[in-house]
Amino acid sequence: MSDHGRPVVVRNVPRADPAVVDALAAIGSATVHEAIGRRGYLGPDIRPIQTGTRIAGSAVTALCHSGDNLMIHAAVETCQPGDILVVAVSAPSPHGFFGDLLATSVQARGVRGLVIDAGVRDTAELRAMGFPAWSRHVSCQGTVKATAGSVNVPVVVGGQTVSSGDVICADDDGVVVVARSEADWALDMSRQRLAGEEDARARLAAGELGLDMYGLRQKLTDMGVRWVDTADDPEG
Amino acid sequence: MSDHGRPVVVRNVPRADPAVVDALAAIGSATVHEAIGRRGYLGPDIRPIQTGTRIAGSAVTALCHSGDNLMIHAAVETCQPGDILVVAVSAPSPHGFFGDLLATSVQARGVRGLVIDAGVRDTAELRAMGFPAWSRHVSCQGTVKATAGSVNVPVVVGGQTVSSGDVICADDDGVVVVARSEADWALDMSRQRLAGEEDARARLAAGELGLDMYGLRQKLTDMGVRWVDTADDPEG
Amino acid sequence: MSDHGRPVVVRNVPRADPAVVDALAAIGSATVHEAIGRRGYLGPDIRPIQTGTRIAGSAVTALCHSGDNLMIHAAVETCQPGDILVVAVSAPSPHGFFGDLLATSVQARGVRGLVIDAGVRDTAELRAMGFPAWSRHVSCQGTVKATAGSVNVPVVVGGQTVSSGDVICADDDGVVVVARSEADWALDMSRQRLAGEEDARARLAAGELGLDMYGLRQKLTDMGVRWVDTADDPEG
Amino acid sequence: MSDHGRPVVVRNVPRADPAVVDALAAIGSATVHEAIGRRGYLGPDIRPIQTGTRIAGSAVTALCHSGDNLMIHAAVETCQPGDILVVAVSAPSPHGFFGDLLATSVQARGVRGLVIDAGVRDTAELRAMGFPAWSRHVSCQGTVKATAGSVNVPVVVGGQTVSSGDVICADDDGVVVVARSEADWALDMSRQRLAGEEDARARLAAGELGLDMYGLRQKLTDMGVRWVDTADDPEG
Amino acid sequence: MSDHGRPVVVRNVPRADPAVVDALAAIGSATVHEAIGRRGYLGPDIRPIQTGTRIAGSAVTALCHSGDNLMIHAAVETCQPGDILVVAVSAPSPHGFFGDLLATSVQARGVRGLVIDAGVRDTAELRAMGFPAWSRHVSCQGTVKATAGSVNVPVVVGGQTVSSGDVICADDDGVVVVARSEADWALDMSRQRLAGEEDARARLAAGELGLDMYGLRQKLTDMGVRWVDTADDPEG
Amino acid sequence: MSDHGRPVVVRNVPRADPAVVDALAAIGSATVHEAIGRRGYLGPDIRPIQTGTRIAGSAVTALCHSGDNLMIHAAVETCQPGDILVVAVSAPSPHGFFGDLLATSVQARGVRGLVIDAGVRDTAELRAMGFPAWSRHVSCQGTVKATAGSVNVPVVVGGQTVSSGDVICADDDGVVVVARSEADWALDMSRQRLAGEEDARARLAAGELGLDMYGLRQKLTDMGVRWVDTADDPEG
Repeated sequence: MSDHGRPVVVRNVPRADPAVVDALAAIGSATVHEAIGRRGYLGPDIRPIQTGTRIAGSAVTALCHSGDNLMIHAAVETCQPGDILVVAVSAPSPHGFFGDLLATSVQARGVRGLVIDAGVRDTAELRAMGFPAWSRHVSCQGTVKATAGSVNVPVVVGGQTVSSGDVICADDDGVVVVARSEADWALDMSRQRLAGEEDARARLAAGELGLDMYGLRQKLTDMGVRWVDTADDPEG
Repeated sequence: MSDHGRPVVVRNVPRADPAVVDALAAIGSATVHEAIGRRGYLGPDIRPIQTGTRIAGSAVTALCHSGDNLMIHAAVETCQPGDILVVAVSAPSPHGFFGDLLATSVQARGVRGLVIDAGVRDTAELRAMGFPAWSRHVSCQGTVKATAGSVNVPVVVGGQTVSSGDVICADDDGVVVVARSEADWALDMSRQRLAGEEDARARLAAGELGLDMYGLRQKLTDMGVRWVDTADDPEG
Repeated sequence: MSDHGRPVVVRNVPRADPAVVDALAAIGSATVHEAIGRRGYLGPDIRPIQTGTRIAGSAVTALCHSGDNLMIHAAVETCQPGDILVVAVSAPSPHGFFGDLLATSVQARGVRGLVIDAGVRDTAELRAMGFPAWSRHVSCQGTVKATAGSVNVPVVVGGQTVSSGDVICADDDGVVVVARSEADWALDMSRQRLAGEEDARARLAAGELGLDMYGLRQKLTDMGVRWVDTADDPEG
Repeated sequence: MSDHGRPVVVRNVPRADPAVVDALAAIGSATVHEAIGRRGYLGPDIRPIQTGTRIAGSAVTALCHSGDNLMIHAAVETCQPGDILVVAVSAPSPHGFFGDLLATSVQARGVRGLVIDAGVRDTAELRAMGFPAWSRHVSCQGTVKATAGSVNVPVVVGGQTVSSGDVICADDDGVVVVARSEADWALDMSRQRLAGEEDARARLAAGELGLDMYGLRQKLTDMGVRWVDTADDPEG
Repeated sequence: MSDHGRPVVVRNVPRADPAVVDALAAIGSATVHEAIGRRGYLGPDIRPIQTGTRIAGSAVTALCHSGDNLMIHAAVETCQPGDILVVAVSAPSPHGFFGDLLATSVQARGVRGLVIDAGVRDTAELRAMGFPAWSRHVSCQGTVKATAGSVNVPVVVGGQTVSSGDVICADDDGVVVVARSEADWALDMSRQRLAGEEDARARLAAGELGLDMYGLRQKLTDMGVRWVDTADDPEG
Repeated sequence: MSDHGRPVVVRNVPRADPAVVDALAAIGSATVHEAIGRRGYLGPDIRPIQTGTRIAGSAVTALCHSGDNLMIHAAVETCQPGDILVVAVSAPSPHGFFGDLLATSVQARGVRGLVIDAGVRDTAELRAMGFPAWSRHVSCQGTVKATAGSVNVPVVVGGQTVSSGDVICADDDGVVVVARSEADWALDMSRQRLAGEEDARARLAAGELGLDMYGLRQKLTDMGVRWVDTADDPEG
């Protein structure tokens, strides 16, 4: 018998260094995304259900089928404190896969939040519990528990591949995934970027122009941009 | 002369027992939807303009034409305290059909909120008034008052048929409709579900797994799911 | 050599009377839109990243290319206190063109907010800074600074033409543009409308029906609408 | 035990007069829609997979669940020559519910075509078989046969209620539903409309203007429209 | 009385040189768009209802309101042989504004086709008549003739400003607008581009690589791209 | 220096057995998708620009940036006869990345078609050349050649991971990817499925019901489905 496509649950997953994960949590997802070369963004359609939360954690992945949340239950057992549950679906599915009971269960295991390429429900309860979630949909629509999928295999969420143990950074701007093997480097790059931004912020706040600070004035001239005084400028 | 398609305003509409409606108001829309067999959900595109409001009420329905809110005015007269105004359109229409003046008018009649398969406007004012609304769009775009439609006929909103007198349950997850004839039964089923959830919540919070609680472990094995220790497991 | 399509930065832009702009700021965008003949609305897809902010200002326009925020930097230099930065793109682009550094820079120049037909990022930071933004997307996805565009030329945002110096009115309902030449008239019309609305609001709050107040009852009858007592009315 | 929401298969369905159905088949869906008062259109998202086919038939309805085509099989048994199979889903589902095997089965029973608020597949084969279909999606994505729904109950497709036995008119413009009780009247109205259009077409082809033919010139003037000779007209 | 926003019909519109328009008709819209600096494209959502047609013509513009085709009738009178009718709407509107009667009328006046930022209907008939159309929607949904708009004023279609007399180029790739004042230049630029493409096509057909032909190999190396022999290359 | 995220071009890619690829080409994408466990479908939004073409080939992958087709040129050099070019983008981008010049170039190298998670242009020319393409968009909008990406690394297209050397099956229903290591097995499974379908087709064409053939009648009864004779059945 072939194992092609046969579902599997991987129990033990290597995670990134918790100190690195926690340090990344303090940095915004946009900064991390930029620092690692504009990669890893799960796109503008995976949105937070709350405002003002910024977290990072290690991915535990579940691959579910359309309208079926069975594998989330299998994933819970593999979760550890500091994890973020990442749920993919094999086909687009605007159902509510995850509500306050599952949130209670994973919160009891120390899970920091949820990222799902489908829908969540009980959003008022999730917010009241302080359990953050990023999802493609909010939906009452219930799910069945009928078809097997996999846990802790690489999945695609928001057009990005997420492997279990990768670092997930999530805030109001959305979600960024950092490969586990790149976590240390991503933290270094992000810190360098933050340092540079701090200086830039001070200069911009003092009135200096990005046009000058980044040397863009000459660049624009070289590209043939004309500066005119008014829209009716005779030289225009 | 034929009456086919001729517009009609139905004045008197039987409503569900107010005590039942009020009891349903305390239960989340996702729970009600689940309790009655995963039916009646108006879908993820009918969204609240506010956060943290949970209501139920009896539907008064208005069928409007694209970009034309004339029939909402006719519907107002048929509203009673405890109602929720439900507005359908004969063709998709991203206009703002309802603003603070209409909200003032229906609030004066004791209407609890609005559900509309089109747009609302004056959303800051509606929030300030404490008048909740669920809509497909938020839009400044004004409407005319030119074409007759009907009031208190069955309408389709978010892919669901809503008859006047049906019970509308709405919160942060969206809107669920319960047929008037099923309201008592829906409350029973929802209460049963809540009771079951309370027990489950306690056990999950204590660390028990859904995998065990719902008997899913054996089910997964029967489906051929393999458990492996790591992604590189030689048996994998 | 032809100047067709050659990029240009216009330095000096006539603005509307600041007193008129400030007066329009106190009026909701839906009211202004309605008052000037249901024109100028940038549509339901240009959404605020914050709740409860209502501003008006003079447009400074930047025309950028897809995934490239170079021209925003050129636009900053032309900004004055009281302006609103309006960014168009030559093709749809769900990138984050504007974040907290650019916000710092324009806020230092007295700019009141941002309207962009693309994405913003660092939204938590923008909210913390009190810098309001209306955008089509929220996105981490970074941009390059590679292709020249224009500043203070007429642009299309949300299907509406915006010229620099036009008045932008923005709040929770979205964004409305008022041509500079129409600003005084728009304020007059909006004030007339507000006065009428105040009276209507009081009467509606007292229980009068729009059906009577606007003379719609006869209109509906003339259109052939039937009033029936119940859905089963034998005359129905 | 309650029957609320309990699935049911209705075996025998009254149909409209076959002669009326066939006569409606020769008339375009846009004309029928217009003739019956601009009602019954399933909207622009239910699209044909072929070009140049125009049919009408009696609806046999199936209500399926997301990603599950079980009830289509139950519906087949209730089909008769001249029917059109109409498939609704309880939640949006971009799966391919219907392919060449089901088409073979229903074509053997004389079914004229398919209308589905979800996806079809094997579209090349369906076109080769001459079996027309109108669907929301084209999709390879397979379905399961796991959850019971109903057959020949009223369903919502494309925002319209379709009852079994209603007349379905479908062509390149999309799909229109005519209530069975209105079929004779709809044919009369459509024929009247066609007769009027024939005359109008001849006059328009001869160069007469709709502006004059429909008396719109005066109407526009009454509305305050100015006619100017050029864009720079001093009176403009 | 103010003329702000007052509707106007402009009767006489200067057009581009017919010889230039006809010469542009032979060139694909993608080539023209590229030749004039990647401008003027009405975007991927304005789609042809037919395959294999390529036309150019002078724009006659109509600005309609949502669900209301009144101003198309006013525009017809201003059409001349060689024109293309361009219809904008003041708010998104998925109605069928234009069908075979209007096509008969404008075809009688020598109009070459239709571009509309809304829906068309009678598409089978339009194809049979050989009257090409590019639209955002195909829809049966009828319109009213109730609200005045303008004719031959600048409009926004697909995010681009179109003025009457501008040149419209349309084919299977979509629609490009060329400002009347740039028509001669656009033809020159397009011809230069075509000449260059002819040479490139021959070299590419003979097996030469774009990598070499456009000097991209060195550019990639300068950007830090590594070439490796296999995915497992030890140098990789 | 870190190689994290550094762009790479992999020159030599192992392909599946050409005989297996060609055998899969004769089988529809929906059948292959079903045969391998309902996996690998690139979804309903990757659509063919032509009708009636069914191909298979080995993937050569290019990872481009938004609005930038530079890496397609680098990918061409690695193409061999029998390949299909698969283009991913790092962020959604509705530009036309590929037109008739690139088609000429890859057709000269024996490439069988294109799959792209962005737009194509010159579609009339591509159809005339007999070069098939499946894309998310059709768009005139041009691209730049400014930012380096990678060639023959694993990419995500339509939510599926595609590695170079994987087998691509594409027809009117869309695109399915088969992992290279599963190609032989996929062919076996598809052939088994086809054999079973042939028998089923004959029986269904002869009038047998799927309800009986698949044993669904009992299953439905077990699920509690009621069969009633008419909608008004007293037992109903």
